[in-house]
Amino acid sequence: MIILGIDPGYAILGYGVVKFEKGSFTVIDYGVIETKPDRTFPERLELLHMGVTMLINKYKPDHIAFEELFFYHNAKTVIQVAAGRGVALLAAQEAGIPLYEYTPMQIKLSVTGDGHADKHQVQTMVKLLLKLTAVPKPDDAADALGAAICHASMIGPSLEEFRIK
Amino acid sequence: MIILGIDPGYAILGYGVVKFEKGSFTVIDYGVIETKPDRTFPERLELLHMGVTMLINKYKPDHIAFEELFFYHNAKTVIQVAAGRGVALLAAQEAGIPLYEYTPMQIKLSVTGDGHADKHQVQTMVKLLLKLTAVPKPDDAADALGAAICHASMIGPSLEEFRIK
Repeated sequence: MIILGIDPGYAILGYGVVKFEKGSFTVIDYGVIETKPDRTFPERLELLHMGVTMLINKYKPDHIAFEELFFYHNAKTVIQVAAGRGVALLAAQEAGIPLYEYTPMQIKLSVTGDGHADKHQVQTMVKLLLKLTAVPKPDDAADALGAAICHASMIGPSLEEFRIK
Repeated sequence: MIILGIDPGYAILGYGVVKFEKGSFTVIDYGVIETKPDRTFPERLELLHMGVTMLINKYKPDHIAFEELFFYHNAKTVIQVAAGRGVALLAAQEAGIPLYEYTPMQIKLSVTGDGHADKHQVQTMVKLLLKLTAVPKPDDAADALGAAICHASMIGPSLEEFRIK
């Protein structure tokens, strides 16, 4: 099964593509889609939407796992980030791929065994589980890989609970 | 010039299409796109995106005028409404149509001459300016027509100021 993990965002969206077979992971790709401040808001949304659509067309994931939006205090930021998440969800929905979502705590728990693990612990475990030679960079890509690992660990009878409703 | 006004939303998005020529308005269409709570969040975003795309294909507006998002206190609501606005902006951007945005106060001021006019005053003036036989319903459609009227009143050298950046 191919899983696309996404850490949604507006200026930067992290992604990670993994193959999960017989309890073992293979990394296919990871990175970020960046949108620059010299573009307009609608242009940046279009870039995010096109970027996620291109990832889906290229890797044909069976499932997509989102990290849940962290609560932002700044109202302007939340409007931008929520719109960025919206167009990423739209791209996945248009492709007809089942969409799942996990909180940061669920991801930490599943990757490290500790729901309160710090960023360094999570990244080290992502590196180990995916047999990488270095911690994946930037953080947004590592977080997206974490979402994909978390999703793989949930596959089973209770998976439906994490579908985005 | 054909102007598409949009009052963005998630459960309900208002739209109004007007022709503005030689200082006079003709209404072409108005109404709402509704998304029902029995659909998933990504499905509802897809419906909003498809709906706005269909309106654009049907009426081929020269400009699109959005009413600016009102600040919502409920964090869940703002995430949904901001995503709904995001996919509506995306549809307009994909069509390559210039996008403008006005605050509720700018719309009230332009439609009634009073930036603090109440909903009833705004709706009565929308009806008069557009030569309608009744106040347009629901409110979301009237608000979208108000955004289109406001946009028409701004056409001139300072229009660039209202482009969505």
